[in-house]
Amino acid sequence: MNGKPLNRQTVERLVMYYRLLRSLPEGAPDNISATHIADHLKLNQVVVRKDLAEISGGGKPKVGYIAKNLLTDIEEALGYHNTNSALLVGVGNLGRALLSYSGFDECGVHIDYAFDKDPAVIGQVFRKVTVLPVEKLGNMLERTRLHLGIITVPASQAQGVCDILVSGGIKAIWNYSPVRLNVPEDVMVRNENMALSLSLLSQHLARIL
Amino acid sequence: MNGKPLNRQTVERLVMYYRLLRSLPEGAPDNISATHIADHLKLNQVVVRKDLAEISGGGKPKVGYIAKNLLTDIEEALGYHNTNSALLVGVGNLGRALLSYSGFDECGVHIDYAFDKDPAVIGQVFRKVTVLPVEKLGNMLERTRLHLGIITVPASQAQGVCDILVSGGIKAIWNYSPVRLNVPEDVMVRNENMALSLSLLSQHLARIL
Repeated sequence: MNGKPLNRQTVERLVMYYRLLRSLPEGAPDNISATHIADHLKLNQVVVRKDLAEISGGGKPKVGYIAKNLLTDIEEALGYHNTNSALLVGVGNLGRALLSYSGFDECGVHIDYAFDKDPAVIGQVFRKVTVLPVEKLGNMLERTRLHLGIITVPASQAQGVCDILVSGGIKAIWNYSPVRLNVPEDVMVRNENMALSLSLLSQHLARIL
Repeated sequence: MNGKPLNRQTVERLVMYYRLLRSLPEGAPDNISATHIADHLKLNQVVVRKDLAEISGGGKPKVGYIAKNLLTDIEEALGYHNTNSALLVGVGNLGRALLSYSGFDECGVHIDYAFDKDPAVIGQVFRKVTVLPVEKLGNMLERTRLHLGIITVPASQAQGVCDILVSGGIKAIWNYSPVRLNVPEDVMVRNENMALSLSLLSQHLARIL
């Protein structure tokens, strides 16, 4: 990665710009201005202009940025060019949905390995990834140099899986289990909780309807 | 919903208890104590005890709770017993993954309608849900009484879809687009951003490796 690390808010906005640029219709103008981006995403123009100036040298007054160059600059800043190979543990409904979802590719992440303990699931193939028995997890981590792990096992197994991942060299964990994981300081955990989101929305509906 | 609304932190913990109880292996003891739950989820025992006492009258000193009754009490508190019918707009990769994911059922949410504008996708069936043309969205909202909408369209279309949902009576929106949506005060929006999570993890890896 070039330059100083970006802060969380900047990353958040860069992801928004990136996804906006990716979703421009065919036949859209070649140029895009910070003003246009800010309007679309309902952000402050000054902030957008500053973000873009920080990660791209391609902006011109009045004209703005060439959209496809800006996209490349954002990809560079977000590290999407260095693809991260990831592994996933727990091929239940959610694990399958994530394995089948191709949208991670554009963020420079590819799930290359999947593990489960259920004999009925082991050997199944999702987007070219064959599910392996979880007993092979530690071994595989020794042989490869993976750093990103996705945990989609039930609550009661999450910490155990996490411990195997960490001792195998995993440094970033995307945790879909509802457990708060104990990890060493240099390991980053992102907790994702779809059940929580749905519960909060349901609670809101129960309250107002 | 009975009693006073739960605050966000309580809902968050109740979802954790719920998922832990759901993931207990067959043959687990009938009883479960607040201490056991707290240990498993790495939460403060006092907090867990207070939460459970608030939503269930079934706790006994030394014995704890009967796990299956506690599960029912939590479902009741979270409103999982009143199933919410939801609609989804945007059947791309992510929309498909969500449609195919059966884990929402246990949270009392069922996606019953899906919309897209792509003729190649319209008419396809995912878990018994047939994708309808997006032009029918407004009409369908008039005919039915849906309150929960899931947005999985590209950034540039998200606010437009949101406006149609809101004018059709939707009161809770689960937003997977990277846009911040403008909604009236009585509409709740939960923003989900998988690309952001992956970007933060990638940034962490780029920094430490």
